[in-house]
Amino acid sequence: MNFQPFTPPSRTLLGPGPSEVPPSVLEAMSRPLVGHLDPSFIDMMEEIKSMLRKVFLTDNEIIFPVSGTGSAGMEFCFANLIEPGDEVIIGVNGVFGTRMAEVAERCGASVVKVESEWGKIIEPDQIADALKNRSPKMVAVVHAETSTGVLTPVEEISKLTHEAGALMLIDTVTSLGGCPVRIDDWGIDAAYSGTQKCLSCPPGLSPVTLSSRAMDVIKSRKGKVQSWYLDVGLLNNYWGKGARAYHHTAPITMNYALHESLRLVLNEGLEERWARHEANHIRLKIGLSELGLSVASQEGHQLWQLNTVTVPEDVDEAGIRNGLLADNEIEVGAGLGPLAGKVWRIGLMGYSSSMENVDKVIGALKNLL
Amino acid sequence: MNFQPFTPPSRTLLGPGPSEVPPSVLEAMSRPLVGHLDPSFIDMMEEIKSMLRKVFLTDNEIIFPVSGTGSAGMEFCFANLIEPGDEVIIGVNGVFGTRMAEVAERCGASVVKVESEWGKIIEPDQIADALKNRSPKMVAVVHAETSTGVLTPVEEISKLTHEAGALMLIDTVTSLGGCPVRIDDWGIDAAYSGTQKCLSCPPGLSPVTLSSRAMDVIKSRKGKVQSWYLDVGLLNNYWGKGARAYHHTAPITMNYALHESLRLVLNEGLEERWARHEANHIRLKIGLSELGLSVASQEGHQLWQLNTVTVPEDVDEAGIRNGLLADNEIEVGAGLGPLAGKVWRIGLMGYSSSMENVDKVIGALKNLL
Repeated sequence: MNFQPFTPPSRTLLGPGPSEVPPSVLEAMSRPLVGHLDPSFIDMMEEIKSMLRKVFLTDNEIIFPVSGTGSAGMEFCFANLIEPGDEVIIGVNGVFGTRMAEVAERCGASVVKVESEWGKIIEPDQIADALKNRSPKMVAVVHAETSTGVLTPVEEISKLTHEAGALMLIDTVTSLGGCPVRIDDWGIDAAYSGTQKCLSCPPGLSPVTLSSRAMDVIKSRKGKVQSWYLDVGLLNNYWGKGARAYHHTAPITMNYALHESLRLVLNEGLEERWARHEANHIRLKIGLSELGLSVASQEGHQLWQLNTVTVPEDVDEAGIRNGLLADNEIEVGAGLGPLAGKVWRIGLMGYSSSMENVDKVIGALKNLL
Repeated sequence: MNFQPFTPPSRTLLGPGPSEVPPSVLEAMSRPLVGHLDPSFIDMMEEIKSMLRKVFLTDNEIIFPVSGTGSAGMEFCFANLIEPGDEVIIGVNGVFGTRMAEVAERCGASVVKVESEWGKIIEPDQIADALKNRSPKMVAVVHAETSTGVLTPVEEISKLTHEAGALMLIDTVTSLGGCPVRIDDWGIDAAYSGTQKCLSCPPGLSPVTLSSRAMDVIKSRKGKVQSWYLDVGLLNNYWGKGARAYHHTAPITMNYALHESLRLVLNEGLEERWARHEANHIRLKIGLSELGLSVASQEGHQLWQLNTVTVPEDVDEAGIRNGLLADNEIEVGAGLGPLAGKVWRIGLMGYSSSMENVDKVIGALKNLL
């Protein structure tokens, strides 16, 4: 059996991620490798940390990409912050809230789920209710739920959380770089993201950040972090300033890509980038409404970067989605869980968020419907 | 503050990994992205699995790259196979055996360490002694110890392990693609590797494989795997045949690179590749001896792909190493643990294992000494 080189088809990526990757980021990945302790690489690591601080809007000392995808970042946060028996309140309104509860339980947490219908936000009042008569160690919510397309108001929830003396953790996988994420202003203690959404870098790294308050909690742990690979203390011996002790071999090329993608985000400007995502979301909604289609997620809380579109009852969901891919080279996402078969998910993330792409998907849907 | 694009210096990578990456692998990483559920990507995943079977010399059904580096693959093996209280015998003769013991303990294992001096192998007799009056669940040894440059005879140890009714786990991070690794012939139940050593792909993925016997043990677990990210059952819902359920977003570009690097390994031929690593190791030893230098690891068990060189007492270890990098653009590794300051580690892995590179490092050492 003879294996041929893989030549990927040319897709327009308008699904829930990965998003399209700008040419200079792809080019960065084809540069020759250096070692993970090379002085030039260490300088670049410091630049990545500086740029991540600007993108997360934080002065946190602890900030670096975990060497895995967004779900590894999620596990990093829970594994470091939770010890067996700790109580955690988790907002569950989609796949990623469900996943947080699962990960927290595997870390030994006692999980209190605060649930909303998929497509609706977690209301601050729901968290306030859950906090009555409870003193959890942490409250965790998904900022931008990729599975449903809603943006939960984490700032208000963070305020309630701190009033109750708990730590605040948010999932920013789909929000970072596509809409405001203000770690310090909002008092967020722990956050993780992914590279393949609004940062428009290939998947493979998970930027994370922890507040000094979170680090104090970790430093006073009774037991070791159950994951060696994700132990922040060990990781920081490599990513922090100082001796740069070898922990694991950093994914060199993925870090080249992240460096370049963060550079592009900052060159565009955060405010400008958010505005672009908003404008293209609005353009998409107008186009959809002209086709008699509408966005399924809660009005007033719809994500700009991920649009769940209600599939009309007489329309073949998978048929249209497959037609978009096979006939038009456009990838959009299917619904998950209770939304399977009921929605399409149209991502307009990072480099994929353009007027041209909006018009392309609207035009293709018009032809297929 | 304005961040410039990162332009890596041009290094000759003769350290403990990453090794140099062939041009076609670098080029593969600059190809446009497709989605992780794209039919073309799923076909490529199947090819990666087929090629990994040929490289690991196994028919195991469970074989795929974990989305992290080699240490994530290590944690994958222990997290899935170990439950709290399980007894594990671990061979410790360097950094990676030490790491296995640490990871196993964090999974709740009761660890019995079988120790050898750094630079020496784990003798099968040592394992035989440890197995007397014990019925461990698993025996784990590092095949090729990157920190010391010795190759432990895992085939004999595997035989003893199976006679005792235990599972056999080996670390093949540095051995795979550079010297014989025969998973099925040797009766190995679990193995993990890395991409950045003798496969000459950038770091970021960890190929793993589990025997059907290992899977039976996992299927009869009492509790859940403590890591959601590394849970083989969930990962196999995506990597196995069937519904291809989304678990995490696969690192698309890294998989492009792995596909191409495995293709190059198989095009060269395993036997031919091993022979090349052996020949360049011999050439290096001859060159070293002409400089009055020698390989520090146990005679008869020296790795072809990673050579620990004893630093003469009157020589400045770090000075020479920094001179190789600064003046010659050659990276070699420092000693770790008890070997810190006492050895250099010269890697001749994958694409880096060439006559030209041997002559280059010998010539540079000659000038510096």
